[in-house]
Amino acid sequence: MYRLVIESSQNYDNHINLTSEQEHYLRRVLRLKVGAEFMAIDGGGNCWLVELTATGGRIIKTVSNDTELPIFLSLMIALPKGNGFDEIVRCGTELGVNQFIPVISERTLLRPKENKVIRWRKIAIEAAEQSERLILPDICEPMPFKQALSHIDGLQTNRYIAIARGDNPTLAKTIRNNEQFLNDSILIATGPEGGWTNSEIEMAIVNNFQPVSLGKRILRAITAPIMAASIIVGIYD
Amino acid sequence: MYRLVIESSQNYDNHINLTSEQEHYLRRVLRLKVGAEFMAIDGGGNCWLVELTATGGRIIKTVSNDTELPIFLSLMIALPKGNGFDEIVRCGTELGVNQFIPVISERTLLRPKENKVIRWRKIAIEAAEQSERLILPDICEPMPFKQALSHIDGLQTNRYIAIARGDNPTLAKTIRNNEQFLNDSILIATGPEGGWTNSEIEMAIVNNFQPVSLGKRILRAITAPIMAASIIVGIYD
Repeated sequence: MYRLVIESSQNYDNHINLTSEQEHYLRRVLRLKVGAEFMAIDGGGNCWLVELTATGGRIIKTVSNDTELPIFLSLMIALPKGNGFDEIVRCGTELGVNQFIPVISERTLLRPKENKVIRWRKIAIEAAEQSERLILPDICEPMPFKQALSHIDGLQTNRYIAIARGDNPTLAKTIRNNEQFLNDSILIATGPEGGWTNSEIEMAIVNNFQPVSLGKRILRAITAPIMAASIIVGIYD
Repeated sequence: MYRLVIESSQNYDNHINLTSEQEHYLRRVLRLKVGAEFMAIDGGGNCWLVELTATGGRIIKTVSNDTELPIFLSLMIALPKGNGFDEIVRCGTELGVNQFIPVISERTLLRPKENKVIRWRKIAIEAAEQSERLILPDICEPMPFKQALSHIDGLQTNRYIAIARGDNPTLAKTIRNNEQFLNDSILIATGPEGGWTNSEIEMAIVNNFQPVSLGKRILRAITAPIMAASIIVGIYD
């Protein structure tokens, strides 16, 4: 069944006011007829079964949400080159990621254009629809790594930073053995091509990040966050 | 340090006979001078530290291999649409996958062209070099799902088939609880857009596959095998 993402304000008195774009998509592209059913989600966890009427949508019932991870998963990702972040948002949203914090690290080559976040949010909406999630992940504006550390300052979350080389224990083992697990919130930082600099790693450790490994092989900046998210799904879902 | 994939036959009496393409790449593209060092791997697990000479390469020493998973990981993957399999080979090789078996299932839309396997093997070589693996994964010719089941007939391996909907236990839980673990070999089958048909699932179960879930969300045919491989790395690496 088709899943349409709406703004909360479009839902009024059990009626969904469709935008002209949505009207076009449902009636012309999907060729739904009056009486056809679709799902509407507001990206905040609400989901409704909706019947298409001549003038919009009529809510038939509320649908319960059981597609979310039992923890809040945030990824802090050094922007990879090219359009790599598109793929991270798409796969990460499918996997259940709740928040993406794109960061510009010392070795980040990309200087993202201003309209990138709009594009990423569009991809997240598509991926949420496809994977049947009801909650849209939050995608922050790209910021320097240092600023990102301030951004999460004071946040009660278990913090891990993935480091490509060295003798750090793996993310999976670290989480399974973590006796000081703070609450149901995990943040994982993954580096750029060429990895984090030593000063970035030190800064992260000062900010209570635990250094972890994602395995013995060197992953691309695109693969690392997808792999890290998969590990979390494997442990918690 | 640059990693060059060579044929075993190029290594003769501690000397590496470079092809003209390799000569060009090392001397013109990478601008290595005589005396510069690089790594040569034969894709079968052998790795050497090599010094560039005027006529080719001189082996300085053999390098030991510690980048492989402790288990043999095989993915049987219903071909996704478009160039999706490229991404699976690239990420999967980085993650440590040993074998890719591309299959044509009932709902597979793609009919792969003949030269596809050559392209996929090239991507695997690039990904092995980048991720510092010494062993190249094996990539089979695409075959119908039924034929793939015959292909692995008699093979002593733990078999799992990922199913998008239903109440199956997750892959991670199933593996952790598996008391009948056969040996150090795992095979995971992931479906196409639209999923496996019921008859395919039944055929797999008859062939000793255990049905598993990859989580509560619906993953794309590209994301599913990457996620499954990540789970295995998280458990074994």
